[in-house]
Amino acid sequence: MQKTALVTGGAGFIGSHLCERLLGEGFRVVAVDSLLTGSLENLASFKENPAFTFVERDVRDATEAEFASCKFDEIYNLACPASPVHYQADPLRTALTSIKGILLSLSLARRDGAKLLHASTSEIYGDPLQHPQKEEHWGNVNTIGIRSCYDEGKRMAETLLCDHIRTYGTDARMVRIFNTYGPRMHPQDGRVVSNFIVQALADADITIYGDGSQTRSFQFVSDLIEAMRKYMALGKDEVRAFFSARGFIAPVINTGNPDERTVKELAERTLALIPESKSKIVLKPLPGDDPKRRKPDISLAKTLLGWEPRVTLDEGLAKTVEYFKARKETSK
Amino acid sequence: MQKTALVTGGAGFIGSHLCERLLGEGFRVVAVDSLLTGSLENLASFKENPAFTFVERDVRDATEAEFASCKFDEIYNLACPASPVHYQADPLRTALTSIKGILLSLSLARRDGAKLLHASTSEIYGDPLQHPQKEEHWGNVNTIGIRSCYDEGKRMAETLLCDHIRTYGTDARMVRIFNTYGPRMHPQDGRVVSNFIVQALADADITIYGDGSQTRSFQFVSDLIEAMRKYMALGKDEVRAFFSARGFIAPVINTGNPDERTVKELAERTLALIPESKSKIVLKPLPGDDPKRRKPDISLAKTLLGWEPRVTLDEGLAKTVEYFKARKETSK
Repeated sequence: MQKTALVTGGAGFIGSHLCERLLGEGFRVVAVDSLLTGSLENLASFKENPAFTFVERDVRDATEAEFASCKFDEIYNLACPASPVHYQADPLRTALTSIKGILLSLSLARRDGAKLLHASTSEIYGDPLQHPQKEEHWGNVNTIGIRSCYDEGKRMAETLLCDHIRTYGTDARMVRIFNTYGPRMHPQDGRVVSNFIVQALADADITIYGDGSQTRSFQFVSDLIEAMRKYMALGKDEVRAFFSARGFIAPVINTGNPDERTVKELAERTLALIPESKSKIVLKPLPGDDPKRRKPDISLAKTLLGWEPRVTLDEGLAKTVEYFKARKETSK
Repeated sequence: MQKTALVTGGAGFIGSHLCERLLGEGFRVVAVDSLLTGSLENLASFKENPAFTFVERDVRDATEAEFASCKFDEIYNLACPASPVHYQADPLRTALTSIKGILLSLSLARRDGAKLLHASTSEIYGDPLQHPQKEEHWGNVNTIGIRSCYDEGKRMAETLLCDHIRTYGTDARMVRIFNTYGPRMHPQDGRVVSNFIVQALADADITIYGDGSQTRSFQFVSDLIEAMRKYMALGKDEVRAFFSARGFIAPVINTGNPDERTVKELAERTLALIPESKSKIVLKPLPGDDPKRRKPDISLAKTLLGWEPRVTLDEGLAKTVEYFKARKETSK
C-alpha cells in the first residue's frame, strides 16, 4: 500500500530534496512550509506529481486538527530557518518554530502511530568542547547569545522529543545535521558554500569571517537524504535496542561529512571551480558566538545504518556551482 | 499611587514569600498558580488581605486577554515545578510551563510597560564546568537527560526573554536562583533541606544520594526576596547600562549564598538542630545527571544591588525546622 509522509519545511533546501526522494520511492507526500526561507521554485521539478500536496502554512500556527483527513506513516520535521542571517532576523519566531514544529510533529506521530524523524543540528553542540563531536557531547551554548534562538530552540526540541518518547512511547528519532550544502541552498542565506559561489559568480569579494582557519565539515545533501531514509527504514524495536544498549535515552545520530576543511580552503576550491571569476578573498571580523571548529563523529550512524558520505567536496561543489550558474542564467 | 504586581507561581514556596513581601510594601498583588506544587496553605497568612487576589490557573493555558482588566507595574514569573521529583513527574508539562509562562509574562510586560523579573535557575549551568559559577558560564546540560525538561525549559525561557528585549525593548530582568530553602518548602519535594528535616522529625533514615561529598550552597528565602526587590527597585536605564558595560546582552544575576556546604554536613547540622531525633544517615545511589558542585559567584549582584545574603545556615535551618515542626503539630 502507498505510504504517506509529512515533511514540515518541505519547500526548503533539504526538505525539497527529501520530498523528491520520497516521491521517487512511491510515497504520497504532504509538504508544509511557511515559505519564509523555503520557495516554490524548490518544488518545481515535482510539484505536478499527483502524489504531492503542498500546504503553505506556518508550523507555529498549524494544529493537529488541520491534518484530520491525513494518516501519516512517516513524519519528517524540518521546519526552521537554519542559517544565522535568517534565524536571527526574527529570533522569537525562530525559537517558536522549533518548539511548535516539534510539538505538532510529535502529536501527529502519536495520533497516527507514525515514525517521526526530527532534524536536529550540530548547533546544539554550540562551540563544542570535544572534537570531533560525538552524540554524547552535551554542548557549549550561550543561552543569552545572538545564536541562542536557534541553538536553544533546537535543544528544547530534542528535550521535548525525548520526553514524548518517555511519556508516550512515540517512535521518534533524531539526526543532528552538520553543515550541508548542494543545489537549492538559499542564495542569500549567508552560509559559506552558497556565499562563496554566489560571490564568485558575481565577481564580488569572497568574504571570510575571521582568518578562515575555523573549520567546517561539508556534507552534500544527497548523502544526508540517504542517511535519513536508511534511518527511517529501521523498525522501532531495532532502533530502541541499538540506543538503549549504548545508554542513550533517545535515538540520536550525527549525520555529516567528517572531511574537515578550513573555511579558507573552501573559498579557494570554490574559486578553482569558477576559473572565470575575478573575485578576491577578503577577511572580515567574526560575528558573536561563531563556533571555531565543527566535525561530526559519525561512528554511530556508520554502525546503525551502514552509511557514510560518498560525495567528495569537489564533486558536490561542482554540482552546486552548476545549480547556481543555471539559476543565474534563468534569472537573467 | 498603589502599584499592582503579578506573581506567577504565587502559591509556591518562593512565590508566597514574595507575595507577602509585596503586600507588606503596599502593592496590590495578583497571584496565579495551578496549585500543582503550590498550595493555598502557603497563602494562609495574607489571603484575606483585600489587596490580594488569587487566580487558580495554569500558565500553560492562560492568555494575555484574561488579564485585560489588570494593568501591572511589576511582573514576577516564578511558575514552574522546581524540584526533580516534581518536574520529572510530567516532563512535557514542566518544559511547557517554562516556555508558556515566560511568553505570557513577556507579553503582559510589553502590553503594560511593566518591569518583569524572571526566576531562572542555577540549573541552567547543569553540571558546571566552572566553579564557582559566574553569569558568563554557558553551562553543561544534557539535552536528552532526565533533568532536561527543567534545565532546557529554563534555558529556553532565558533565550526568549533576551530575544524579547532585543525585539521589543521589554524591561525584563533575570535572577538565576541557587538552592533556596525556608518555611513553606514543599515537604515532599525531594530537596535535601526539606527531606532531611522531614526525615529527622519522623525519626526516619536521612537519605543522602551519593557519598554526600557533593556540595550545594543554601540560600535562605528572605535573602532571595530581598535581592529580587532590590533588583526591581532599579530603573530600566540603570540596569541596561550596568549590563551593557559588561558585555551582557541581557540583565542576569546569580542570587544564592556562596557559603558552600557538603550535603553530608547539611544532614549533620539538621540532626544537631533536632536532638530528639532517632534518625540515622544512610547513603543511596546518585540519580542521573545530578550536579556534583554548585556555588554562585555573586559579585554582580553585590555590585549592582549592594546585596549579599545575611541569614546564616544555622539561623535559616532553625527557622525551617520550626516551620516543619509547627506544620507537623497542626496536621496531628
